[in-house]
Amino acid sequence: MARVKVIGVAGYSGSELARLLIQHPNVESILLIDRRAEEPTPIWKYRANLRGTTDQMVVGKDDGSKADAVFFATPDGVTMNHAKEHLDTGAKVIDFSGDTRLRSAEIHQKWYGIEHASPNLLQEAVYGLPELHREELRKANVIANPGCYPTATILGFAPMVKKGWIDTSFLVADVKSGVSGAGKHLNTRMHFAECEANFNAYKVVGHKHTPEIEQELSLLAGEDLTVNFIPHLLPVTRGILATLYSTLTEDLSIDQIQAEYESFYESHPFVRVLPQGEEACLKAVQGSNFLDISVHVDSRNSRLIVTVTEDNLVKGASGQAVQNMNLALGFEETAGLMQPGLWL
Amino acid sequence: MARVKVIGVAGYSGSELARLLIQHPNVESILLIDRRAEEPTPIWKYRANLRGTTDQMVVGKDDGSKADAVFFATPDGVTMNHAKEHLDTGAKVIDFSGDTRLRSAEIHQKWYGIEHASPNLLQEAVYGLPELHREELRKANVIANPGCYPTATILGFAPMVKKGWIDTSFLVADVKSGVSGAGKHLNTRMHFAECEANFNAYKVVGHKHTPEIEQELSLLAGEDLTVNFIPHLLPVTRGILATLYSTLTEDLSIDQIQAEYESFYESHPFVRVLPQGEEACLKAVQGSNFLDISVHVDSRNSRLIVTVTEDNLVKGASGQAVQNMNLALGFEETAGLMQPGLWL
Amino acid sequence: MARVKVIGVAGYSGSELARLLIQHPNVESILLIDRRAEEPTPIWKYRANLRGTTDQMVVGKDDGSKADAVFFATPDGVTMNHAKEHLDTGAKVIDFSGDTRLRSAEIHQKWYGIEHASPNLLQEAVYGLPELHREELRKANVIANPGCYPTATILGFAPMVKKGWIDTSFLVADVKSGVSGAGKHLNTRMHFAECEANFNAYKVVGHKHTPEIEQELSLLAGEDLTVNFIPHLLPVTRGILATLYSTLTEDLSIDQIQAEYESFYESHPFVRVLPQGEEACLKAVQGSNFLDISVHVDSRNSRLIVTVTEDNLVKGASGQAVQNMNLALGFEETAGLMQPGLWL
Amino acid sequence: MARVKVIGVAGYSGSELARLLIQHPNVESILLIDRRAEEPTPIWKYRANLRGTTDQMVVGKDDGSKADAVFFATPDGVTMNHAKEHLDTGAKVIDFSGDTRLRSAEIHQKWYGIEHASPNLLQEAVYGLPELHREELRKANVIANPGCYPTATILGFAPMVKKGWIDTSFLVADVKSGVSGAGKHLNTRMHFAECEANFNAYKVVGHKHTPEIEQELSLLAGEDLTVNFIPHLLPVTRGILATLYSTLTEDLSIDQIQAEYESFYESHPFVRVLPQGEEACLKAVQGSNFLDISVHVDSRNSRLIVTVTEDNLVKGASGQAVQNMNLALGFEETAGLMQPGLWL
Repeated sequence: MARVKVIGVAGYSGSELARLLIQHPNVESILLIDRRAEEPTPIWKYRANLRGTTDQMVVGKDDGSKADAVFFATPDGVTMNHAKEHLDTGAKVIDFSGDTRLRSAEIHQKWYGIEHASPNLLQEAVYGLPELHREELRKANVIANPGCYPTATILGFAPMVKKGWIDTSFLVADVKSGVSGAGKHLNTRMHFAECEANFNAYKVVGHKHTPEIEQELSLLAGEDLTVNFIPHLLPVTRGILATLYSTLTEDLSIDQIQAEYESFYESHPFVRVLPQGEEACLKAVQGSNFLDISVHVDSRNSRLIVTVTEDNLVKGASGQAVQNMNLALGFEETAGLMQPGLWL
Repeated sequence: MARVKVIGVAGYSGSELARLLIQHPNVESILLIDRRAEEPTPIWKYRANLRGTTDQMVVGKDDGSKADAVFFATPDGVTMNHAKEHLDTGAKVIDFSGDTRLRSAEIHQKWYGIEHASPNLLQEAVYGLPELHREELRKANVIANPGCYPTATILGFAPMVKKGWIDTSFLVADVKSGVSGAGKHLNTRMHFAECEANFNAYKVVGHKHTPEIEQELSLLAGEDLTVNFIPHLLPVTRGILATLYSTLTEDLSIDQIQAEYESFYESHPFVRVLPQGEEACLKAVQGSNFLDISVHVDSRNSRLIVTVTEDNLVKGASGQAVQNMNLALGFEETAGLMQPGLWL
Repeated sequence: MARVKVIGVAGYSGSELARLLIQHPNVESILLIDRRAEEPTPIWKYRANLRGTTDQMVVGKDDGSKADAVFFATPDGVTMNHAKEHLDTGAKVIDFSGDTRLRSAEIHQKWYGIEHASPNLLQEAVYGLPELHREELRKANVIANPGCYPTATILGFAPMVKKGWIDTSFLVADVKSGVSGAGKHLNTRMHFAECEANFNAYKVVGHKHTPEIEQELSLLAGEDLTVNFIPHLLPVTRGILATLYSTLTEDLSIDQIQAEYESFYESHPFVRVLPQGEEACLKAVQGSNFLDISVHVDSRNSRLIVTVTEDNLVKGASGQAVQNMNLALGFEETAGLMQPGLWL
Repeated sequence: MARVKVIGVAGYSGSELARLLIQHPNVESILLIDRRAEEPTPIWKYRANLRGTTDQMVVGKDDGSKADAVFFATPDGVTMNHAKEHLDTGAKVIDFSGDTRLRSAEIHQKWYGIEHASPNLLQEAVYGLPELHREELRKANVIANPGCYPTATILGFAPMVKKGWIDTSFLVADVKSGVSGAGKHLNTRMHFAECEANFNAYKVVGHKHTPEIEQELSLLAGEDLTVNFIPHLLPVTRGILATLYSTLTEDLSIDQIQAEYESFYESHPFVRVLPQGEEACLKAVQGSNFLDISVHVDSRNSRLIVTVTEDNLVKGASGQAVQNMNLALGFEETAGLMQPGLWL
């Protein structure tokens, strides 16, 4: 049984994490922390649906108690300055921010625009995609929970890049995300009246999730590669759909490719490679930790087209963090994560 | 541990019921039946989110096995003809349709427009609102699972009608429902392009949920009363909000009324009477079996205004059916029903 | 041909007004003003759809030029301090705020919580509902453009209150509004992720639109009356639906009532009294200056139920302001206002 | 002044066309036809927003009167059998279906799966994209109104393909459409409860709009090319956003590319090439005939990324048809088409 802390619980991914931890069978105590809580406040003040299901309070400051795992559901720049104090107590640190995702302090500085305060964290951290790094995660002390966009993009390309079956000089990821991915922060673009029935691309070049996608796929390819990652904002609260494009380098049938995806993810309980003819869609994953993949080939020009869906707040953030905690603390990988969502 | 059957599982409330039963700790076997299934079909063909979480199949016909409870998630007219064959085996019958809700065959015929095939069912059935009939439900063989609109309307008025504190000659229920309440049936009004950003009242006079509202409130009042129940269609998938209006018959403070609601629902785990100043909203109940109530008084003219929210597919249908099954089969009332929904 | 000024054009009703004025056949020049414009800015920076259709700029300050009509699309508290400077030049003032709607400074102070800076404005202003005050509006210098909620509520009750056919001791207005009615102001409640698929009542007692509803209906009734006006927030950008409840005081048929509504609005081009059996809905009015009314009676208890729909930004704000300008400046009442909206 | 007929006016693009023609300054008479109209029916029975703005009726059959232009807003297979009877009277035929878009009967048969009944129509027809074929359209008798997806895709790629600046062996069009593009036809996928908050790709390989995209871009390129066109269904009623990908074949700056797009569309009133840093979005085009383009380059790998938005019912269907009629009948190209939409 584990004692855990969540720092930054009032945000969207923080409170989603609280929802999952409260129902987790291996978690015995939870300390919910957010500096926005001026006094101890029931968690259901931030998520009214939790009223009547839990007595958990949110406090403004850490009480210094010992924990087995500490989640940083905080903006960029916090973990790099505060991870150490928790690591020193023996806690595992699971970081939701960009502070630990890149292995190179130089690349970090280039994309995030600030100097890294603890470059050694970058060396110590394991990138928290269990489907690629399961064994390392079992032993990790610092886990870099991936961005929501990279989770879908990397897992969609991974089997082909690893196998060397696609042209890594043309990797395009056209990715569409629900609004909760941008967090609780207020701006005009998130006003219901501006967002409803709207749709657009943004940060078409230079989104800061790009380097972690490139880092992980380069690792799989065994060579440096670039990815064109183009995010779009859907008028939907939850969910990401990535449509991925590349070209087959060999004369491969759709059946061979389908088989390769199925084999690659065979031992991974949260990845569902859909049968030919079924399309990944948001409703099938909203509220759950599943990630769905549909594979297609246009044989006229050997184009590979892969669609991937996930819930950006679950497999794209808090569910994946729990999956990482399960590995790091020696629990069942699926513990507390098999709820299927609602569909309607 | 119970063996259960669901008849009509391919519809929205039927498949929602499947979702809840699959996760229920006291259910050992489930037979999912729908005549739309021409051959045995995985339940996730109807709700893709369930893929990977269950092997349950949907079959076209009952296999005649013995069950402790049989759910009729069927249109009006089915239960009245088929309940008996299940009751004869000793199964409890829980009916989602209008076939068992009214105690008078005459009133049934007036509102439903057809003659009742088994009037004795109307006598045997217990109206499945646990907050009003908990003890009877523990012994019931036939349970009339209430309509989604009546659940919110009756529970919102009940404490005041019972106490005699409101003028029963003016009871107005302005109720707004999400689209899933109308079921999976296709018509132009449910086409996304017609429904999105739209809103309207419908069946302003004469909706068939009216008589069960009047029956239950008359029972509480000890006299016959009428209710103006006006349904509206919200551009939302899940959720009902009822705004209820009447006039206080005595000079009562809002604190007295609030206290009465809290006292009335004190022992009922799924009704949350919100503190003064907090407004019931759909997000707080979507995906859960909770029903929220907010109470207000306009002291200028002694008007009582009560808002009530529920998820029409859960507390308004399938969750309530499970709650009724729990009572009828002697399980904990809350078994399998404490999931809090998602909020976002 | 008219020269007009709009103060506060960057807000939702201000920029909607700009859209209408730009297409208006009797408007020769428009000065768009908003203090949020730090430098002259094309209007399409605030409404990107106008790009390519107009060269109109928004300036931060009035240039002192002479205008025939000045629109205050400003928050409460501005018009009371600045109307005079425009009235003195001979301009008609059309006020979108609460500063001029009430005839009593005392009632204003009670509901708005501040002392009125120019009580004489309250005496001079004409309440800008052309269907009730058309002749006065032709001569008015100060026009109090009604609130969006009062427009629907007053016009829905007016024929019956005037005729004395309903019990004015029980007037309930359950009104549901799209989000744009709350303006462009940012708060968590308007965040897409909080608002989408949500629905709730708010300010159940004491909304500041109440006194203008009561003032106008009392005038029609010839006696003081109170109204229970309960606003709700729809997950929709544009549109209001009011469901109005009262009791018939005489034994009247639905045909008599329908005929009375049709007769009352016969000469009013923007009010469409729908035939029996057709329900007012948002889509039929979004984007247009029309207001639709459906009338119903529950003969079991003599309840009158009226539904009213309008576009809160057009008939509920900017379209009505143009209609008022048309009257005050001697143009056709319908000039520039006959666009039918989009439906889909 | 023109006399026009619309065949198939009860569908979404047909009734959108009616809305535009009713307001058109050069149209003197309109005959609205739909075989679904069993008796003469006001057009506002199909689009309730038009009530009070027009007396136009829909009739079940053509009355044989003479017309200057006949619009076929009909499914595939109608125009090929009925165009001739109208052409013989001297009318211009404007076809919304796939019957006239392709120049090769063989390619038509391959993608549409049926033999073409009038192959000579394919020779006579001009592809109705005024930005590419304006002069031919002025003289055309048969105009193939483009598909909604091809309009955005072709116009987004056209300047670069014509100039030879992109690698035509890798043309990817990731396109997302609102639901109205699929028409009024009922199926489960369009049920509000299934569609709301959902998103998915469909017909990932083999959508029948592919050959017209390839035909027009091949014509511009001067060589046969293939395009990977992948449609997605947005939970939005109106609007298309295309994200287009290719690779620059020369070392070109973003400024050179931006300049080329601006120059290419300089004389075309409905195409707005947005300044660097502004993103095309649906709200800016919904309800209008404008098409917006944003251009980007990722200089790391010379990738060109172009986003294009349009209203699928206007520039993607009925507005474009009116633009084509304007050209063919010698009116101003913009007549009746400069309405800016609503934004909110």
